[in-house]
Amino acid sequence: MNYRVVLNVLGIVLRFLGISLLAPFLVAVIYKEPESATIFTVSCVITLATGLALQYTNRSEFGELSHRESIVIVAMGWLLVAIFGGIPFMLAGISPVDSLFEAMSGFTTTGSSILPDIEIYSKSIIFWRSMTQWLGGMGIIVLVLAILPRIAVAGRQMFQSESTGPIKDKLKPRLKDTAQILWGVYVTFTVLEIVLLYLAGMTLYDSMVHTFPTMSTGGFSSRNLSIAAYDSFSIELIIVIFMFIGGANFNLFYRTLKVNRVALIKDKEFQTYALIVLISTLVIGLQLWNWGDSLASSFRHALFQVVSTITTTGFASTDFSLWPESTKLILLLLMFVGGSAGSTSGALKVIRVILLMKYGMREIYKSIHPKMVRPIRLGDTIISDDVMQAVLAFFVLYLLVFLGSTLILSALGLDLLTSVSASATTLGNVGPGLSNLIGPMANFGSIHVIGKIVLILNMWIGRLEVLTVLILFVPAFWKK
Amino acid sequence: MNYRVVLNVLGIVLRFLGISLLAPFLVAVIYKEPESATIFTVSCVITLATGLALQYTNRSEFGELSHRESIVIVAMGWLLVAIFGGIPFMLAGISPVDSLFEAMSGFTTTGSSILPDIEIYSKSIIFWRSMTQWLGGMGIIVLVLAILPRIAVAGRQMFQSESTGPIKDKLKPRLKDTAQILWGVYVTFTVLEIVLLYLAGMTLYDSMVHTFPTMSTGGFSSRNLSIAAYDSFSIELIIVIFMFIGGANFNLFYRTLKVNRVALIKDKEFQTYALIVLISTLVIGLQLWNWGDSLASSFRHALFQVVSTITTTGFASTDFSLWPESTKLILLLLMFVGGSAGSTSGALKVIRVILLMKYGMREIYKSIHPKMVRPIRLGDTIISDDVMQAVLAFFVLYLLVFLGSTLILSALGLDLLTSVSASATTLGNVGPGLSNLIGPMANFGSIHVIGKIVLILNMWIGRLEVLTVLILFVPAFWKK
Repeated sequence: MNYRVVLNVLGIVLRFLGISLLAPFLVAVIYKEPESATIFTVSCVITLATGLALQYTNRSEFGELSHRESIVIVAMGWLLVAIFGGIPFMLAGISPVDSLFEAMSGFTTTGSSILPDIEIYSKSIIFWRSMTQWLGGMGIIVLVLAILPRIAVAGRQMFQSESTGPIKDKLKPRLKDTAQILWGVYVTFTVLEIVLLYLAGMTLYDSMVHTFPTMSTGGFSSRNLSIAAYDSFSIELIIVIFMFIGGANFNLFYRTLKVNRVALIKDKEFQTYALIVLISTLVIGLQLWNWGDSLASSFRHALFQVVSTITTTGFASTDFSLWPESTKLILLLLMFVGGSAGSTSGALKVIRVILLMKYGMREIYKSIHPKMVRPIRLGDTIISDDVMQAVLAFFVLYLLVFLGSTLILSALGLDLLTSVSASATTLGNVGPGLSNLIGPMANFGSIHVIGKIVLILNMWIGRLEVLTVLILFVPAFWKK
Repeated sequence: MNYRVVLNVLGIVLRFLGISLLAPFLVAVIYKEPESATIFTVSCVITLATGLALQYTNRSEFGELSHRESIVIVAMGWLLVAIFGGIPFMLAGISPVDSLFEAMSGFTTTGSSILPDIEIYSKSIIFWRSMTQWLGGMGIIVLVLAILPRIAVAGRQMFQSESTGPIKDKLKPRLKDTAQILWGVYVTFTVLEIVLLYLAGMTLYDSMVHTFPTMSTGGFSSRNLSIAAYDSFSIELIIVIFMFIGGANFNLFYRTLKVNRVALIKDKEFQTYALIVLISTLVIGLQLWNWGDSLASSFRHALFQVVSTITTTGFASTDFSLWPESTKLILLLLMFVGGSAGSTSGALKVIRVILLMKYGMREIYKSIHPKMVRPIRLGDTIISDDVMQAVLAFFVLYLLVFLGSTLILSALGLDLLTSVSASATTLGNVGPGLSNLIGPMANFGSIHVIGKIVLILNMWIGRLEVLTVLILFVPAFWKK
């Protein structure tokens, strides 16, 4: 491995982060927050200086990155961004581990928080907190397309085998085009949501602070009560629509607009994604109604929470940690499902769930007709054995990380629902847990520091789809 | 499909069951229980008559059974046996669904009970209840070897690829020998345990009634408090040893005695099985000690409960539903692991867990060296892709059944721990659940009748390793 190249690229990433810190600095200036302005100045200088130092002490010509270099850059890049992106929180008085937790939760678009009271922080700090999610949401798409495709991760292969249009056969020659198109779609939706939320009665600041975590399916809010603080049906509806968009395949939007008007609604994954939302809303809505909530309120909150959870956003329109356990079980399962491939959401993704089910069904058919060779199809596409293998291994590794994390949290004395839902929500980059302790109106602050470190690892592992991080812990990876 | 053949064989199975009912009849005579003697006479006559009627109205010459015929016979055979084996319970005043639950729990060696007070029933009824487990434990081995090998289920392929000795390459020519050897091992251990329990202070009757569910890893006891009723360390130790034996590969015992003295301790699955028991005991023991139990008592009960759970027996030496949640989480995971392939235990089996882990690890290595072809090995054996595919599909289907069952139970209003552990414990053929409601000192009697039917299906599906039962629900299976 050429470490100079790795450090050089990491320097570029940090420089990019340093420049991003000018945005909250500007907010601090606008809202006349001198203390915060200082914090962002210092953070910006530290980050830029480190970035430049890394870049220029490791000058090197490089053409194509090697397989292993790419992995190290992606995995370490995300860790560094969380560390440096957490500096403003540290300077605002939050402990180092908590700052890393908050920043990792931000960039990975998880949305779990350790802050007991969000509303005591300055407008610019909260702006930065939301903005980390927007950067992370965009970042993952760009990274997947720009760097991750070089490593053999399921996501890319599926992306390739699944999509026609801008990224059909050879990904690399058109990588820039692809990244620009996705950027364009992302920014367009972002602007649209900001305008709509503003029209629905939010201030411009609140609109931005809530749009960033919606489009990136992140889930940070500026309010302790999350979206419930606004108690506005129109705001909830706008956010539901854009969370749903954030959980769909961005590539499909482009194709629908430019190539084929029915590309979106003809897509098997999108259909399944919509169907899961529909059924889950119906079941949870009925259960809430049966539980004593009014009919309208039941379905309003059921829809919001289902979309918020499956898209791995994590906003709350009500305190669902008080809901009956049967509804929580469905939310827990949705935390594992996640949104579509090529979206800003986390977890398994709908397409993997579909493929796992088809794999199971095929085995049933195979035991009826043992000699029949029956490929797994998705729409018109035949799924290759390699893709299927990667999906299965991803599933097994995802479960192993989940179980390991749950066992550690449980051994630290947390109750079962807290341990299970904390692991699922961080690994799936969702946000809040399902128990009172870590529910949408509570936070992760009271968890033991070892538990926090485990959850930070979960967010990192979950965001990079398991392999990219786990691989770093395999000695063979570092050997020549 | 030749239905005459199917009905004919099912008749033979029922005739065999009818003859077995003479054993509890004998117990009723010995203990002078005229009412029970009548119950068993009636049950025996009904079962024998039905069996003979099926057999002789469907006389037919048959050589080798077809693939589909075998499946129908195995699946329907187990259902019929549970229905007819439950007749004595029905005649003793238990409702039809509860009787089927108790009998299915018996034959599948699950050990979950719907009886609030076991001790009010006659000695012969309790004897029959224990005996169903012994028949089921033996039955599965004989069935796996006699009928199941013809259908392409993972169990057989693994059995073949894994074992040397009596059942190495071609299973069929030596099927009778194999079945006799396993019978021999099973009966020998059974007699040995009866003698040891008798020497440890149990009556002969109690020894038999507890040996049957130990060797078959069933878990029914004649006492409401299960093994805790005896509060005897020596009895617990004997039962621990024989549960552990019941959870090991029976084929290995034969090889160890006759072929190779170190076959058992050199076996990868056996090593892992023992290691999981050791580590789980250590972790749970420490947690119980930390929880306030004495050191000796902590490890005594930890060992007993770990062995009872991983072997899917389900005996209790104490009320572990009162234990801290972190220990319950480990027990819950053990419910999924199960004992060794070729044992009388249920659930995934240790070998499948090993193979799943190895599969996940291989994908990590593959993403380091994408071009390297690296077969999955277990000891000296290379695991074929077919076997690995069957293991993965089994895992996915097992989880799907588990999740489906948990969702239904939860929708019926049961709390999370009850829903989750009831599904896991019945599907894995373990026995008690982990909550107070369905814990080792409680029972499944209070669950809604729909829930009971789901749990009965779980036991049936779990016992026949998922595919054999699920396949019946696929329309394609019934087409010409």
